[in-house]
Amino acid sequence: MKALVTQENLNKALSTVSKVASSRTTLPILSNILIKASKGSLKISATNLEMAVTAEFGAKVDEEGELTIPARLSTEFISSLPHENITLTSEGSNLLVSSTGYESVLNGTSSEEYPSLPTISSKNKITLKTAELKKALNQVLFASSSDDSRPVLTGVLFTNHDGFIYLVATDSYRLAEKRLVESKDDINCIVPASALTELSRIMNDTEEEVMLSWDDQQMRFSVGGVELITRLIDGKYPDYRQLIPAKGEFLMEIEKPSFVSVAKISGLFARESAGSITLHIDGDLGELVVSSVASQLGQNKATSKIVSSGSADITLNSKYLLDGLAAINSDGVDFSFSTKTTPCIMSAQGETDVDYKHVIMPLRS
Amino acid sequence: MKALVTQENLNKALSTVSKVASSRTTLPILSNILIKASKGSLKISATNLEMAVTAEFGAKVDEEGELTIPARLSTEFISSLPHENITLTSEGSNLLVSSTGYESVLNGTSSEEYPSLPTISSKNKITLKTAELKKALNQVLFASSSDDSRPVLTGVLFTNHDGFIYLVATDSYRLAEKRLVESKDDINCIVPASALTELSRIMNDTEEEVMLSWDDQQMRFSVGGVELITRLIDGKYPDYRQLIPAKGEFLMEIEKPSFVSVAKISGLFARESAGSITLHIDGDLGELVVSSVASQLGQNKATSKIVSSGSADITLNSKYLLDGLAAINSDGVDFSFSTKTTPCIMSAQGETDVDYKHVIMPLRS
Repeated sequence: MKALVTQENLNKALSTVSKVASSRTTLPILSNILIKASKGSLKISATNLEMAVTAEFGAKVDEEGELTIPARLSTEFISSLPHENITLTSEGSNLLVSSTGYESVLNGTSSEEYPSLPTISSKNKITLKTAELKKALNQVLFASSSDDSRPVLTGVLFTNHDGFIYLVATDSYRLAEKRLVESKDDINCIVPASALTELSRIMNDTEEEVMLSWDDQQMRFSVGGVELITRLIDGKYPDYRQLIPAKGEFLMEIEKPSFVSVAKISGLFARESAGSITLHIDGDLGELVVSSVASQLGQNKATSKIVSSGSADITLNSKYLLDGLAAINSDGVDFSFSTKTTPCIMSAQGETDVDYKHVIMPLRS
Repeated sequence: MKALVTQENLNKALSTVSKVASSRTTLPILSNILIKASKGSLKISATNLEMAVTAEFGAKVDEEGELTIPARLSTEFISSLPHENITLTSEGSNLLVSSTGYESVLNGTSSEEYPSLPTISSKNKITLKTAELKKALNQVLFASSSDDSRPVLTGVLFTNHDGFIYLVATDSYRLAEKRLVESKDDINCIVPASALTELSRIMNDTEEEVMLSWDDQQMRFSVGGVELITRLIDGKYPDYRQLIPAKGEFLMEIEKPSFVSVAKISGLFARESAGSITLHIDGDLGELVVSSVASQLGQNKATSKIVSSGSADITLNSKYLLDGLAAINSDGVDFSFSTKTTPCIMSAQGETDVDYKHVIMPLRS
């Protein structure tokens, strides 16, 4: 291999890809990245066997070739070099890197030792606005489960009904559902949250569109010169529409900053009771009183003005409430509820056509 | 106790003081802070038995009194309250906190259970500019030792000679010496680095002056309404002036950004050799070549232009070199050296009257 690249391009590709390479693996080669020079371009790839990320950019390639080099050292090293041209030359399985004032050798390995990267060929394709997908992922990802005992819940469901594509995540205590775009495509994929978190980091604001394609086992996201392919999670996602009400019996309307403030402060006092706070909704008085269950350190009562069509006492996890509120992009929140044992549904205030719903299961009080 | 305070004042005092209170202690009361209402003012104090910090501010006090409350909860709680007046009322050993919309109880304990705070009465006093002391601490603190086996090295020496006060810190591998102000006061105190780190955090830019007073066992820093008293470290500080040369045989002049860059990049390749990099100074060629000892992952050579009166190969710890360079506030660095086994001395370029010296012991190569 012999190639001439700019520091900026190489640095950008390495920082996009290298997070997927891990040194905490039983397969040492996975802490390396694969670098491949073809006519006119360089491809940098990394995989953790669950997903693979590849970044491609233009380069002056005098001699084609491929090898693998240590991900972390290469990334830190290249990012520290001055913004000048860099020459990459292979010497056996090592890579010589030279730039004005710097001559380095990165000890590599042959590309033959690197696992083969997944490919996908499928007619299933949709194109989304990058900004919209990024926002949607922000609104649902945190609600997925980190508990491996139910693998399907560690992913985000991409599904379609009523002519729309929806993203859904739940850890069985709370659920987030985001309506994405109109589409007649039939899609029913559970995508690992870890891959989507990585995707969210990779998608930058300069690229307008991201293309999704998928088959039964994999999904690919292509955005600019970057491609992420992830395996799908095998299994049946719970039929969440059967389990949650579309809306509650009563509706409380509240200003979001005020709701955040009372939930946050009461949550401070609820650390010993695992974040358990009680919402006392009084529709007649037009008042919400949030109190934390008495703890060793103290207790708290916080009051906020509301408009509500009904009254109830509901005990929630303050962290889940705050997570949900953070995902609602609106100055006002519609909080729909029935009894102290039925799920609460939150959405942006006053929207007749709600595209984001956040559901929280109450705690026993 | 019954007092009326502003959220801003109480929040500022709590955030100044509460870091000293620790929950990782065998004495649970030390995770509390002491709050004391006297006529016209409120005092908030915390101690970890090594040091104590007190912040005082104006308050409308209707009823004097004192008690202790949990530091962390109180600080987080008060900082989350709206910027309005807060009423504090004691009820037994508990504190009722009320503000518009919020009614809380912080479970406290009687102040009698709290350790008595240190006091100091001494004629030894000097006043320093806050900004200068803060800068000086930044330049020396990092060079103190974190190894408790030689307690004196975990502190910073405040000493005077030649009519000046100096701050000195060393971990025996490197040494930082900062000349502070002209003074005829006799001072010879070893102040724990942990207390000075806390002091540095506390000193803010709105207060122009800080007053130091000390006796044989303690030192007090007073800045604005805040007071920090720390015990001194008992023992004899090494006679560092005997051990280090005032300057080396040769002088290398180098631009600081360029020195930082070559040291940083070579350091990346030196992780497996504990940061060991070799400076090849060639006075005839006017060139510094920094190379990292060959490692498993790769190796590097970085070149920079210099002017030097001599030549030598010197092996240094790249972290120590970078720490030292970061403390030198200048575009150019004077690097004074003799042989590969004698200490190197760094200072700001071209200063005839050097007020900051950084000394690094070479590694065996």
